Amino acid sequence: MTRLRFHKSLDELKEKLLVVAGMAEQSIQRAVEAYRTRDLSICDLVDRGEMAINRLEREIDQMALDLLAMEQPMAIDLRFILAVIKINADIERVGDSAVNIIERVRELQAYPVCDLPIDIPRMADLAAAMVRKALQSFIEADARMADSVLAMDDSVDKLNETIHYALLNVMRDTPQYTPQALGALVIARSLERVADHATNIAEDVIFWVQGYDVRHKTSLGNGAGR
Amino acid sequence: MTRLRFHKSLDELKEKLLVVAGMAEQSIQRAVEAYRTRDLSICDLVDRGEMAINRLEREIDQMALDLLAMEQPMAIDLRFILAVIKINADIERVGDSAVNIIERVRELQAYPVCDLPIDIPRMADLAAAMVRKALQSFIEADARMADSVLAMDDSVDKLNETIHYALLNVMRDTPQYTPQALGALVIARSLERVADHATNIAEDVIFWVQGYDVRHKTSLGNGAGR
Repeated sequence: MTRLRFHKSLDELKEKLLVVAGMAEQSIQRAVEAYRTRDLSICDLVDRGEMAINRLEREIDQMALDLLAMEQPMAIDLRFILAVIKINADIERVGDSAVNIIERVRELQAYPVCDLPIDIPRMADLAAAMVRKALQSFIEADARMADSVLAMDDSVDKLNETIHYALLNVMRDTPQYTPQALGALVIARSLERVADHATNIAEDVIFWVQGYDVRHKTSLGNGAGR
Repeated sequence: MTRLRFHKSLDELKEKLLVVAGMAEQSIQRAVEAYRTRDLSICDLVDRGEMAINRLEREIDQMALDLLAMEQPMAIDLRFILAVIKINADIERVGDSAVNIIERVRELQAYPVCDLPIDIPRMADLAAAMVRKALQSFIEADARMADSVLAMDDSVDKLNETIHYALLNVMRDTPQYTPQALGALVIARSLERVADHATNIAEDVIFWVQGYDVRHKTSLGNGAGR
């Protein structure tokens, strides 16, 4: 494989990663839409999406492995490929969180809808924005943007705490709504988990970009970043 | 670096991974002990352990990266190092789950202890056993043992569901115990997450070992496992 073809393969790898990330983000938004509307047909879409995400995850892993095995890439490309492998694993688990959410939506069908003093769609938007921004920081190799994802995680954690206590009060004051409140609480925790995966991705980007910087500054050439 | 020294480094990498896995498993057991006894001094131990786990995680990552960068290992060693990198990430998150548990333990201090119809220590033992077995399957490159971890995950999921519904009933029937029941429910979910990480590790072991088998059967030499 020529260097040119090798770099084309790296671009293809990045492209595939963006596709699977887009699918995972869509799954989260669909799952929350299913919660909001109690529309079970959306749940089925999420299930099918999960299978597609898993297939693509394996494909990306295999492609990354093949590139490492056949090309013995230089340190900078090596770091990039390793970042892809790690980010890929986190994205697949964002898909898992979407499945966890629709499992709760299906259970909640047994109970009447009730008004809860919390905003799940807002939390979902925040978590999805974090995933999007983490991926963007990866594409642009922008450690500062990745840093801003870490700051967003604090907001999500705070929102999750607020939701937790609001729902605790609902359960105590109106125990007849406990199943609905508990369902919402578990969904909020799944979204917090999505935010954690975005944070992991951002940390990998920082690690990758810093290695890049160090390599360029010192010309050590091994890219180990020390 | 000679081949001999290279293989010594791989052994060292494996050794470090086992150390961090042991620390993570201990953190889980300590966190549940803190829950059982409401002993906050154990919570502090878990906090300190978490910092040590994070440091070791970075060290393992860097060592793996250096080996890849400097040695351009053959496919079979490449697969091994990639498995280490992935397993390492899951182990660090087992440590995170322990921290999530002690956060709840600290909050629960505000409420009187009450008897709940669930068995958190049993669930913790199961989850910790899964982590241990997943690591053992890695050391012994035993895909069948890794498979048995996947089966154990079903038991943990079932146990988690049982706990979920038992606590839902506690909350509905005795709303004054809602904070305690909710704390236990969140801790059970953290343990289920530990089991998920063990499952991820087992899947990585299967992927790694199968590549190994395929390589040996076909003598393709690229270890890509296809």
